Amino acid sequence: MSRQDQEHACKAYTELKSRFRDVGRLEAIGEVLGRDFLTAMPEGAYKSRLAQIAYLYRRIQQDLVNKDVQRLIEDAQDHEEAYPNLWSRENHANLREMVRVYYDHSLIGEELMEHNARIINEGRRNHKAAMERNDWHIAKRHLTEVLDVEKRIAEKKMRARGAEGLYDALLQDYCPGCSLSQVEKWFGKLEEELRILLPQVVDKQSGRMAPVPVADFYPAESQMWMNEELLGLFGFDFERGGLYQTGHNPVEGGTPDDTRLVIKSVDTDNFLDSMKSALHELGHGIYIQGLPRAKWRYQPVAKDMGAAMHESQAMVIEMMIGRTREFFNFLAPRLEGLFHAMNDPALRADNLYAIKTRVRPGTDRKKADEISYFFHILLRFRIEKDLIESRMNIEDLPKVWAERLHDMLGVFPENDAEAVLQDVHWFVAKFGYFPSYTIGHMIAAQLWEKMQTDIPKIFSRIEEGDFVPLTQWLTKNIHAKGRIYSMSELLNDLTGSAPSPDFLLAHLENRYLGDG
Amino acid sequence: MSRQDQEHACKAYTELKSRFRDVGRLEAIGEVLGRDFLTAMPEGAYKSRLAQIAYLYRRIQQDLVNKDVQRLIEDAQDHEEAYPNLWSRENHANLREMVRVYYDHSLIGEELMEHNARIINEGRRNHKAAMERNDWHIAKRHLTEVLDVEKRIAEKKMRARGAEGLYDALLQDYCPGCSLSQVEKWFGKLEEELRILLPQVVDKQSGRMAPVPVADFYPAESQMWMNEELLGLFGFDFERGGLYQTGHNPVEGGTPDDTRLVIKSVDTDNFLDSMKSALHELGHGIYIQGLPRAKWRYQPVAKDMGAAMHESQAMVIEMMIGRTREFFNFLAPRLEGLFHAMNDPALRADNLYAIKTRVRPGTDRKKADEISYFFHILLRFRIEKDLIESRMNIEDLPKVWAERLHDMLGVFPENDAEAVLQDVHWFVAKFGYFPSYTIGHMIAAQLWEKMQTDIPKIFSRIEEGDFVPLTQWLTKNIHAKGRIYSMSELLNDLTGSAPSPDFLLAHLENRYLGDG
Repeated sequence: MSRQDQEHACKAYTELKSRFRDVGRLEAIGEVLGRDFLTAMPEGAYKSRLAQIAYLYRRIQQDLVNKDVQRLIEDAQDHEEAYPNLWSRENHANLREMVRVYYDHSLIGEELMEHNARIINEGRRNHKAAMERNDWHIAKRHLTEVLDVEKRIAEKKMRARGAEGLYDALLQDYCPGCSLSQVEKWFGKLEEELRILLPQVVDKQSGRMAPVPVADFYPAESQMWMNEELLGLFGFDFERGGLYQTGHNPVEGGTPDDTRLVIKSVDTDNFLDSMKSALHELGHGIYIQGLPRAKWRYQPVAKDMGAAMHESQAMVIEMMIGRTREFFNFLAPRLEGLFHAMNDPALRADNLYAIKTRVRPGTDRKKADEISYFFHILLRFRIEKDLIESRMNIEDLPKVWAERLHDMLGVFPENDAEAVLQDVHWFVAKFGYFPSYTIGHMIAAQLWEKMQTDIPKIFSRIEEGDFVPLTQWLTKNIHAKGRIYSMSELLNDLTGSAPSPDFLLAHLENRYLGDG
Repeated sequence: MSRQDQEHACKAYTELKSRFRDVGRLEAIGEVLGRDFLTAMPEGAYKSRLAQIAYLYRRIQQDLVNKDVQRLIEDAQDHEEAYPNLWSRENHANLREMVRVYYDHSLIGEELMEHNARIINEGRRNHKAAMERNDWHIAKRHLTEVLDVEKRIAEKKMRARGAEGLYDALLQDYCPGCSLSQVEKWFGKLEEELRILLPQVVDKQSGRMAPVPVADFYPAESQMWMNEELLGLFGFDFERGGLYQTGHNPVEGGTPDDTRLVIKSVDTDNFLDSMKSALHELGHGIYIQGLPRAKWRYQPVAKDMGAAMHESQAMVIEMMIGRTREFFNFLAPRLEGLFHAMNDPALRADNLYAIKTRVRPGTDRKKADEISYFFHILLRFRIEKDLIESRMNIEDLPKVWAERLHDMLGVFPENDAEAVLQDVHWFVAKFGYFPSYTIGHMIAAQLWEKMQTDIPKIFSRIEEGDFVPLTQWLTKNIHAKGRIYSMSELLNDLTGSAPSPDFLLAHLENRYLGDG
C-alpha cells in the first residue's frame, strides 16, 4: 500500500485524501467528546456538550458536502476511468467509499444532520431516565421525535439509493450491500428452523438438573480484573485503549488509536453479566484496533464494514469462543482463586457451561440464550419496519410488543422497562440496526466453522487461554482489510460461501442437540 | 443584558456574535480534548491526539481570520460610531474584545498556530520526562524549539501592538493592559522592600521552636475527600466540574459549563501539598464557574481577564484566606478526625499556621513561602526576558539559574530537576506568564483588604467554614464581569486604587512582622 501522504498520480484524489483525513480527525474528536460525555463529563455540562457535538457534526457535513468535493470526486472518477492501472485495489476502494460517504452526507442537509446528532446524544440519557422510572411517557415523547427525523432521513435515502422501501434504505446503513428482501429470506429460514429447534432443546434440557446459580458476592474489582485479563489474553492493546464502567448501556466505538470500551457498571451478585459484556465489547474492540492504521488512518477504506460485520466480531468472541466447554475449562479454576471459592459447585466448568447454554425463553434480549436470541431480534426487526413504514403508531408499541413477544416465545413482560424500554437503539436513532445482530450471529458461525479448520488445535488453545492466534486470524482475514471488499466478497473468498443462515443453524444444532 | 441570540440593531454584530459563539464551541471542544489527554486518554493515542488538537486550532484560526470577519468587524465598528447609544456597555466591550481576538489571531498564520498548539501539548510530556530523568538535554531540545516559535510570535505581536519590546509583547497576553515598564516599577519596589523584609522575618522566626513537621501516612482518599469538601464549602459547583488527580503538573482550565480541576497525584506523606494545590485550583475554578454564562456563553466579553487576574483569584483563596489563623482553626480538629490522629501536635491549628507561614528560602517555587515566592518569580521573569530578547542562550540556562537563585535567596539547587526543570511553563510556551503570579499576588492582597471591609465578620466566618459569602463577593465583583472592564478600571472602581504593590507589602508586613 502506498502511504497516504504520498501523492497519487491523480491530483484530485490526493486532495480528496487530505480532506477525508481532516474529516476523519473531526470524527475522531467527536468520538472523544462522546466517550467523555458518557464516562467523565460533569452532569451540568450536558446541554452545552450536546450543542458542541451537534455543531461538530454540522462542520463535518459542511466539509464533506460542497462543490469542491463534488468536483474533486468527478475528476478522480474521470482519472480512474482513463488510467485504471494507476489505481490500486485499495485506492479504488477508497474512492468508492469516498463517493458513498459523500452521497450519504449530501442527502441530508446540515440542519437535519445537526438535529440528528443532538437527538442521538440525548437519547442515551432519555433512555436511562425512562428505564429507571419505568416510564413509557418519557420514551414516547423522545421516540416520536426520533421517528419523525428518521422517516425524513429514510425518505431521502430511499430515493437516492433506489431502495426497496423506507426500511430497506435504513438497513443498508448497518449492513451495506444487504437488502430487505435478502434479510427476509434469511430470517424466514431461521424462523422456520428455530421454531422447531427451540422446543426440542428446551425439552432435551428439561430432563437435566438445573445448573447451580451463580449467586455470591463477586467484588467489582475482581470482576474487572478478570475482564481486563481476558481482553489482554485476546491481545487487546491497552496502550491504545481500555475497559471502563458506566451507569449507561455499553458502547463500543473509538478509533484504532483510542479504543475505549465501556460496559455497564459491574453487578456484584453476578460476574457473568459483566464478563459477557466485556467479551462482546472485546470483539468490537479488536476489530477497531485491527483496522488499517499506519498507512490509511482516517481514510474511508480503513473503516469497518458496518454494524453487521462488527456484531459478527463481537459474537465470535462472546458466543462462539466464549461459550465453548474449553473456554470454561480455562476459566473455572481461575475463578475459584479469584473469588476465594475453592471447589464452589457454581464455578465448576460444566456448571458454567450449563448456565451459558441453558435455553429458556425470557423477556430480556441481553440475557437471552443463543437460540431464543433470534426471536428477540425478529420481534424488533418487524416492529421497527412497521414503525418506519407507518404501519404502526408509537402509541401501540407497548401493546404490540407484549403480544408479539408472547406469540414468539410464550412469555409476557411484567412492565415496560422489561419490554420496549430495554434497548437503547431506537432512542439513539438506530432504526435498522437490530437485524445486524442476527446477521452478525450468522457470520460469526460461518467464520467460526472456518477458524476450526484453519487454526490448528484451536480447542486446546482455548483451553489453555492461548487466544491470540484466534485474534490474529480475525485481524488478518477481516480487520486489516477495512472496507476494501463487500461483506459478500470477503465471505466468499474466505469461506467459499456468501452469507447464509445455514452455518448458524448447523452450529446451534451441533451445540444444543449434539453430544452436550 | 440582552440575550446573545437576540438580534442586535447592527446586523454585522449579530453575525459576529454567532461566529464567535461557534469559535467558542470549538475552543470548548479543545478544552475537553486537552483534559481527556491528561487524565484519561490511552498512551498510544498520543500522536494522533496531538494532530487532532493542532488541526482543531487550525480550524479556529481559519474561522476567525478571513475577509468575512474583517468586513463584519468594520461594519460593526461603523455602526457603533454612528449609533453609540444603541450599544450597551457589554456589547461595546464584546466588540472591542472581538477585535482584539481577531487581531491577535490574524498576526499569526495557520502554520505557526498549528505548530504552536502542537508544541504546547507535547510540552507537558517532555517536561515530565525531563523532570523524571533529571535530564537537561530533553529539556534543551524542546525549549530551543519553543523559543524559536515564541520569538517569531513575539516579533509579530510587538510590531502590531507597538509594544516596548519582544518580551513586553508577550507579557500583554497574560496581563492585558500591563506594560513591561510598569511591571519593572512594581517589581523594583517589591525587590527593594522584600530584600529588607525577608531577613527580618527569618530572624524573627529563628527565635522560635521549629513547627512539628507533618509526616505521617495520610491516605489519598482521605486527602481527596477533604480537598473536595473544601471546594464544596467555597461553593464550587460539582454539577459543573470536579477535582481530579494526574501524574502531570496541575492544570486549570475548562469552561463555566465544565470546570474540571486537575492536581498532581496526592503525596501520602504530606497532605499539605495536595491541599495547597486544591485551594489554588479552587480559586481558578470558582473564577471560571462564575464567568457570565447564560446570556454570554462563548462570547469574548464573557472570558476571564487574563492570567494575572486569574492567579489573583487562586491566591486570594490559597494565600490570603487559606493561610489565616482562622482557616487552620476550622481545619485542624477536622483533620484529627479524618486522619485518626487525636491531639496530634502536628495537626494543631497553631502548628499548621506556623508551617504555612514559615519563611525560609529554598529552591522550589511551588513550596516557597509567601515572601521568598516573589524572588522565584523575579528570577524567572528576568531569565525569560533575557531569553526572548536574545541576551542569553538556552545553553547557559542551568548555570545562570543557579547563580541568580543564589544571589537572590542564598540557596543552590542540587540538580536541574530542582532548578530550571521544576516549572512546566516554558515547556508549554508560556513565556511572559511568570509575572502574572506576582501581579496576581499583589491584586489578591488588594482584594483581600477590601473583602475585610466589605464582608461582615469575615474572620469568624472563616473559622466556621462559612466560605460561600467570600466566593459570592469575588463572583459579584470580579467573575461575573467577564472582560467588560480592564484590570485597572475594575480595581479602581472596586478598591479605589489601580494595581499597586503597596497592598501586598502591607499584607506581608502585617502577617509576618505583626502580632504573629
